[in-house]
Amino acid sequence: MERIAIIGVGSVEYGDHRTVPCRTLGAQAVIRALEDAKISWDRIDCAYVGYGITGLLDGQEGMIGQLALREVGITGIPITRVENACSSSSCAVRESAIAIRAGESEIALAFGVEKMLGYSTEDAMRALAGDGDVPLESNIGLTFPGVFAIAAQTHMREFGTPREALAAVAEKAHANASLNPHAHLRNPITRDEALNGRIVADPLTIYDCCPISDGASAVVLASERIAKSHPGPVVWLDACVLATGTYDSISMTSFEATRRASQQAYECAGIGPNDIDIAEVHDCFTIAEIMHTEDLGFFEKGDGGFATLRGDTQINGKKPINASGGLKAKGHPVGATGAGQLVEVTKQLRREAGERQVEGAKTALTHCMGGFFAQDCGSIVINVVSR
Amino acid sequence: MERIAIIGVGSVEYGDHRTVPCRTLGAQAVIRALEDAKISWDRIDCAYVGYGITGLLDGQEGMIGQLALREVGITGIPITRVENACSSSSCAVRESAIAIRAGESEIALAFGVEKMLGYSTEDAMRALAGDGDVPLESNIGLTFPGVFAIAAQTHMREFGTPREALAAVAEKAHANASLNPHAHLRNPITRDEALNGRIVADPLTIYDCCPISDGASAVVLASERIAKSHPGPVVWLDACVLATGTYDSISMTSFEATRRASQQAYECAGIGPNDIDIAEVHDCFTIAEIMHTEDLGFFEKGDGGFATLRGDTQINGKKPINASGGLKAKGHPVGATGAGQLVEVTKQLRREAGERQVEGAKTALTHCMGGFFAQDCGSIVINVVSR
Repeated sequence: MERIAIIGVGSVEYGDHRTVPCRTLGAQAVIRALEDAKISWDRIDCAYVGYGITGLLDGQEGMIGQLALREVGITGIPITRVENACSSSSCAVRESAIAIRAGESEIALAFGVEKMLGYSTEDAMRALAGDGDVPLESNIGLTFPGVFAIAAQTHMREFGTPREALAAVAEKAHANASLNPHAHLRNPITRDEALNGRIVADPLTIYDCCPISDGASAVVLASERIAKSHPGPVVWLDACVLATGTYDSISMTSFEATRRASQQAYECAGIGPNDIDIAEVHDCFTIAEIMHTEDLGFFEKGDGGFATLRGDTQINGKKPINASGGLKAKGHPVGATGAGQLVEVTKQLRREAGERQVEGAKTALTHCMGGFFAQDCGSIVINVVSR
Repeated sequence: MERIAIIGVGSVEYGDHRTVPCRTLGAQAVIRALEDAKISWDRIDCAYVGYGITGLLDGQEGMIGQLALREVGITGIPITRVENACSSSSCAVRESAIAIRAGESEIALAFGVEKMLGYSTEDAMRALAGDGDVPLESNIGLTFPGVFAIAAQTHMREFGTPREALAAVAEKAHANASLNPHAHLRNPITRDEALNGRIVADPLTIYDCCPISDGASAVVLASERIAKSHPGPVVWLDACVLATGTYDSISMTSFEATRRASQQAYECAGIGPNDIDIAEVHDCFTIAEIMHTEDLGFFEKGDGGFATLRGDTQINGKKPINASGGLKAKGHPVGATGAGQLVEVTKQLRREAGERQVEGAKTALTHCMGGFFAQDCGSIVINVVSR
């Protein structure tokens, strides 16, 4: 099968961009990715854009991809929005890779953008709830923090996961984000601060929850033919898998779709979880990182929290997780998150991650989750990327 | 290049489904398409769903594809929403074809769904405006009927198109829809009624505008390998092109993106406009059908209105256009429209179109437009399908 390369990546800083239109924020990330790839805008022959809930907030439901790319000078080519809640731009990357493999494109652009700040918390939460099952979940009071609080309680009860492990995830996330100039929450916090934060949904405090962020990230993908003669650094997309829940094995402490998608991704890349040097994992809540790192095969089931307490997931640990700061502290501009994970691991594999560089990283995994409050979720996208 | 086949199609009746959830409406179309293909739900290995503005109306922005397919029994597989305003499910079909060509899928499902009724006209119009350029178009008062009224005025002035030609498009649309049990507006109208309807935006009357409809349509696509051993009837997707506007040649009487996309589609299929026996064309307003049929190369520029008056576009005419009734009378449930066009031409090519059957049709074209009020629009998808 033809190999797909990532030849350029770019992000805007995640944070508060309330005075910048969504289209312009997206364009800024695209321009940075094109500069990174050292190619002109007119080399892009196909584009996919991922965004989720922006339309519910400002009314601009369609055409953000076309409007953003017009600002860059890119017009006329196929431009398609893909949406899968929080994994929207992961899916944009996947469609780009598929289009290249099908011969529809030689150099494809995938980008994600979301603007969530500048609205009331109520409006932002209502918009986010649009990615759950509205009549059967959000309308009857099941919120994202609520369901992850249940997951945390269950995980603590079933596996004896200490409450402190959640705080250790948060402490690590803020520490890593403090080394990331693109992160939203760059303030280091202590474990005690995390433990004693304002309760959102017991046991989760404000420090266990990712922030509401604006942001945009972009990835330039190319065919093997283009990549082989590309003058700049190249990393390879060895696997790009999308799976959805089956509802067969509902669990409050495990994501069956993460397990299945990761098995497919490892098989596709010809590796196993032990071969992954670094991973960006969908830590919308601290407990989510613990559960997903278990389901990805990095740790035994029930050991994710203890592994965090042992320091295994730190930048200098055995299995560095979310060196970027993750959704938890880098930020979670919904539609941008998946592409942003690939920006981070590409920089890590290219030894360009500055103070948060993981030494010797050759193979990386990104994991993004979209939709549904229920555990057996709407979409899991897993990429394996290597030097 | 591998050929892609359509092995099954299905639609719900377009019209008023306000008591049926969006997911269920989508599921009903999918079940009909699977029955038509005579395959079990577990043969589907990949799905794309197109919808546009439903989230702006009922808050369910994400996961409609997953929720709909769960009702059918389809879980676990890759399910991705693609959105490109009114061409959303055309793009779902395109992504399905690309996935098959890339080897990601053998049997892919593309479906579109939209629910627009049961809301105030103001709310529905505001949601539709989300597919234009919100700050620069809709917020300053440029509505879809308004811009197409300007187009009609300009076309009448530049080419001498009689006002009666618009009414003739509407008369034909209603006549065709009266023969289509899946159409929303099945009442025949006279040309005089169309001419003397209530003015929406001069010269367009209520009869020049497509209705607000609920609906869902689905298409099952398969690889050439699967299609060759498929027991049921098969039609072939010879071209599937997506183009976006370039802003280079703004015109009030021509869609440059339609011209460019159709040239690419004809080239890909190895044919010309004269080889097209029937076409479903994006007639959101009567003037749009006239303009697009010119831009598709069916008629000389400026002759589209006169061709309609000559009867060329009728079911028994030289170039039957919108035998289904079109968006104008079959209805325009935004996200379902593109897939619905393929349902119609597939039935026509299979000689299953009943009273509206176009005799001897062997090659068909579908044309779908998405986004923007400005002429040089957001997305044009053109399919060429043959027996």
